[in-house]
Amino acid sequence: MNSQSSSLLVVGSVAIDWIITPHAEREESVGGSATFFAMAASYLSGVRLVGVVGGDFPPAAVKDLRDRGVDLTGLEIIPDGKTFRWKGRYHDNMNDRDTLSTDLNVFEQFAPKLPPDYRTSDYLFLANIQPGLQEQVFTQMQRPKLVGLDTMNLWISIANPELRSVLRHVDVLTLNDEEARQLSGEHNLVKAARAVQKLGPKNLVIKRGENGALLFDRDGEMFSAPALPLEEVIDPTGAGDSFAGGFMGYLARPGVEPTGGSLRTAMIYGSVMASFCVEGFSYDRLRGLDATTIQHRFEAFSKLTNFTRASLVA
Amino acid sequence: MNSQSSSLLVVGSVAIDWIITPHAEREESVGGSATFFAMAASYLSGVRLVGVVGGDFPPAAVKDLRDRGVDLTGLEIIPDGKTFRWKGRYHDNMNDRDTLSTDLNVFEQFAPKLPPDYRTSDYLFLANIQPGLQEQVFTQMQRPKLVGLDTMNLWISIANPELRSVLRHVDVLTLNDEEARQLSGEHNLVKAARAVQKLGPKNLVIKRGENGALLFDRDGEMFSAPALPLEEVIDPTGAGDSFAGGFMGYLARPGVEPTGGSLRTAMIYGSVMASFCVEGFSYDRLRGLDATTIQHRFEAFSKLTNFTRASLVA
Repeated sequence: MNSQSSSLLVVGSVAIDWIITPHAEREESVGGSATFFAMAASYLSGVRLVGVVGGDFPPAAVKDLRDRGVDLTGLEIIPDGKTFRWKGRYHDNMNDRDTLSTDLNVFEQFAPKLPPDYRTSDYLFLANIQPGLQEQVFTQMQRPKLVGLDTMNLWISIANPELRSVLRHVDVLTLNDEEARQLSGEHNLVKAARAVQKLGPKNLVIKRGENGALLFDRDGEMFSAPALPLEEVIDPTGAGDSFAGGFMGYLARPGVEPTGGSLRTAMIYGSVMASFCVEGFSYDRLRGLDATTIQHRFEAFSKLTNFTRASLVA
Repeated sequence: MNSQSSSLLVVGSVAIDWIITPHAEREESVGGSATFFAMAASYLSGVRLVGVVGGDFPPAAVKDLRDRGVDLTGLEIIPDGKTFRWKGRYHDNMNDRDTLSTDLNVFEQFAPKLPPDYRTSDYLFLANIQPGLQEQVFTQMQRPKLVGLDTMNLWISIANPELRSVLRHVDVLTLNDEEARQLSGEHNLVKAARAVQKLGPKNLVIKRGENGALLFDRDGEMFSAPALPLEEVIDPTGAGDSFAGGFMGYLARPGVEPTGGSLRTAMIYGSVMASFCVEGFSYDRLRGLDATTIQHRFEAFSKLTNFTRASLVA
């Protein structure tokens, strides 16, 4: 993507993960919500990134992002600091996981400041960071056309007022089903979605891992995107962020208006990018894609869900 | 449905359940796999039922099935016996459940014998009963066009050779995901499906409750049918059997060939009937439907999954 179309901005974590799955382990796995988002979105739109890393962050990963055309003007490098690190172990089902350790490091003092030319970005994605920081970013923006936000159970628990504050500005919120229940206090998913929509986000995407994703849109319509059943899942880390990258990346394309129909197509591009993400550690699978390979998988989703209408009514 | 088109035969349990959900309880709830199957299928095809009940089985339930046009020639009533009874409690998520008690009663001595005119049925569904009995039924049939079968974790454990024997005759097997893993010994669902298909069933339907259902067909294609997110789930009992009823009922309709495309449409009719089933205790919601109401919900599934194709490739 050329830089003229770089109007999609992501703010989030850039990390070094230590991933343990039932089948394999990788100790220095480049990750972070902004990293996965940017890698995935880069195939659909130009992307600008805001984040922070330490001197231990591999230059090869910076190059990988640059090679994908990601604008890294907003990536702060603190030479004598250490990058945010997360260590996790996946269960046999490759869906549930335990956090073994989290070291915030340079992330602890992170106060995102947008480069001047980032502030006019039309599309903003606030990946999963402290909701107070998300709001700080939003207030630096001029007037984005569409704001997406991701969060997690931790912030719903310990930063609920800050989260509710930033949600007032959000057009599309992504959550998993447990988080939707936690935020709304409703167990039933449809009721939970309606309650969350009343907090501000007109559109809600509920991510369900290997069970796909559900969209509740501003018109009260629902859309169900399946996950592609895969023969091999290597590492689910970053699947949700890759989904968000494919989703926002499609919406940021020239000529696409973020309305009901486009949101559905965006859900499929999100699912496509998530399906690639889990096929490798880190962004291994995401970095070497091309438009034809992505389009081929989009067609696989078409095929997966396509059926012929029939009628019982004479 | 008129009796000329009654070429869909179901063999399974007819039961009285005691259902406890987090919200309500019903002590004498008519259930059983054949009951739910027949009620659901009756809107799409004629249905013949083989099963057994005791003198305690409510005549009103017999009338309900007759009113739906179900042929009950094959329903054995043992006046001084007691009907099969199951008692279960659903968890808060309305998906998992604990069996509190099972009393086989008249079912213990059940040796299904098909009335002569049943033996020429074109479509056979062997609902969840002991696999040895399922095979006994199959051997009484002349030459069905399509054989469907449902089973459960118990039979995979304690009657594995009998199950594998009857599976050789099966065209469509329905299982939930845990059962597919148990039967195949494969954790990955795609690999599990391929392994199960090698046991005989060319087509495999994996039921995932509130996450919909997956079809692996004889051509190696996959199809994902969503579940309709519902605002209120009253009682999930019978959802899988209602799915099978809608699925087989559609395939048994005149002019429908049980090939790839029709199997997909059948998956949606299955999902439609399952979605009605869970909206009431027993077959409360299933019994008062009509073609227009069913078709309306079919359209809701169309809307839920429909998206516009786009392309990244110039």
